[in-house]
Amino acid sequence: MGGVSTVDRAERVPKQDRSRATRQRLLEAAVACLAEHGWAGSTVSVVAERAGVSRGAAQHHFPTREDLFTAAVEYVAEERSTALRALFPEGAAGDRHAVVAALVDLYTGPLFRAALHLWVAASNEDQLRPRVTELESRVGRETHRIAVDLLAVDESVPGVRETVQGLLDMARGLGLANLLTDDAARRERVVEQWAGLLEQALGRVRD
Amino acid sequence: MGGVSTVDRAERVPKQDRSRATRQRLLEAAVACLAEHGWAGSTVSVVAERAGVSRGAAQHHFPTREDLFTAAVEYVAEERSTALRALFPEGAAGDRHAVVAALVDLYTGPLFRAALHLWVAASNEDQLRPRVTELESRVGRETHRIAVDLLAVDESVPGVRETVQGLLDMARGLGLANLLTDDAARRERVVEQWAGLLEQALGRVRD
Repeated sequence: MGGVSTVDRAERVPKQDRSRATRQRLLEAAVACLAEHGWAGSTVSVVAERAGVSRGAAQHHFPTREDLFTAAVEYVAEERSTALRALFPEGAAGDRHAVVAALVDLYTGPLFRAALHLWVAASNEDQLRPRVTELESRVGRETHRIAVDLLAVDESVPGVRETVQGLLDMARGLGLANLLTDDAARRERVVEQWAGLLEQALGRVRD
Repeated sequence: MGGVSTVDRAERVPKQDRSRATRQRLLEAAVACLAEHGWAGSTVSVVAERAGVSRGAAQHHFPTREDLFTAAVEYVAEERSTALRALFPEGAAGDRHAVVAALVDLYTGPLFRAALHLWVAASNEDQLRPRVTELESRVGRETHRIAVDLLAVDESVPGVRETVQGLLDMARGLGLANLLTDDAARRERVVEQWAGLLEQALGRVRD
């Protein structure tokens, strides 16, 4: 983003744009591929073809398979975080229930499915494990931060931090329950009930 | 288990015992194998070798790979359910916190890891999906029943069913968070906090 200071700026910017667009297509194709075919079925070649990019161009952007798929999960997680914050520009503002439902939604789409495949593969693959562990912790911290902001809670109050963490653990478990079957109806009832429990537990919305 | 009514009972029972012992060794080896190597690394041959059983004998007990691994996850889930009930012969009896911790423990060992590999594989493999979906729903219902019994709650009270379901979803999410790193310290704090919130939500222990 920005920072090109040479004279041939007009010529170079479009090239950068193209490169950025290619990168983005690769990242989105990688997440879709992981969600549909799992780690075993997800190679750089398959993703390049899906993105309509040559294998060489894909490898220019992402030298290894691990680079491509960890970057993809991180990219889509960031997109989703931005979208979530945009949904509640003023935070919970009295509607914590909607925030809880939106947080749970983070864990029921293709991104969660892709991330799950990556986590599970990482648990058996030494090359992948450190990368995914680091990624998971970064994404987890960011999600926690968003949850605290949108729920408008005060983490200096004892127990609030753990209450929010447990909510996100529950959301992750609901995502897992949605893996093989459409669990939406049951999930909605659980979210309704737990949003009420949280309302009681978290106290008033922070100013 | 019982039921042999012919005259050569004395001779046949030991053979049945041997067969049962072989089956059990195969099931335990299958779960360990799945937990350690994932679905891709888990074949009938690998499990037979680990169990010290010939491939032919393994196939006599379990004609297909799907048969072996779904039976294995079910067997170990039943063992764990029995063990959990035995831990609390009189139900919660005033110590719901211990029950919540024990329920969460169901999702942090090798069984959960094995089941997770099977679920994730099933999400991409048509041969496996219906078997695992059916298994997951059966094990899920049994775990819910145990939770209701041990927590000594009354499901006819509105919201109680969903509160218990959400607790089991949280437990599943905590299991996932433990996949790549040892999450025990954080988990203990979350369980402590939510056990307290649940105590308030679930009302008095049922008679």
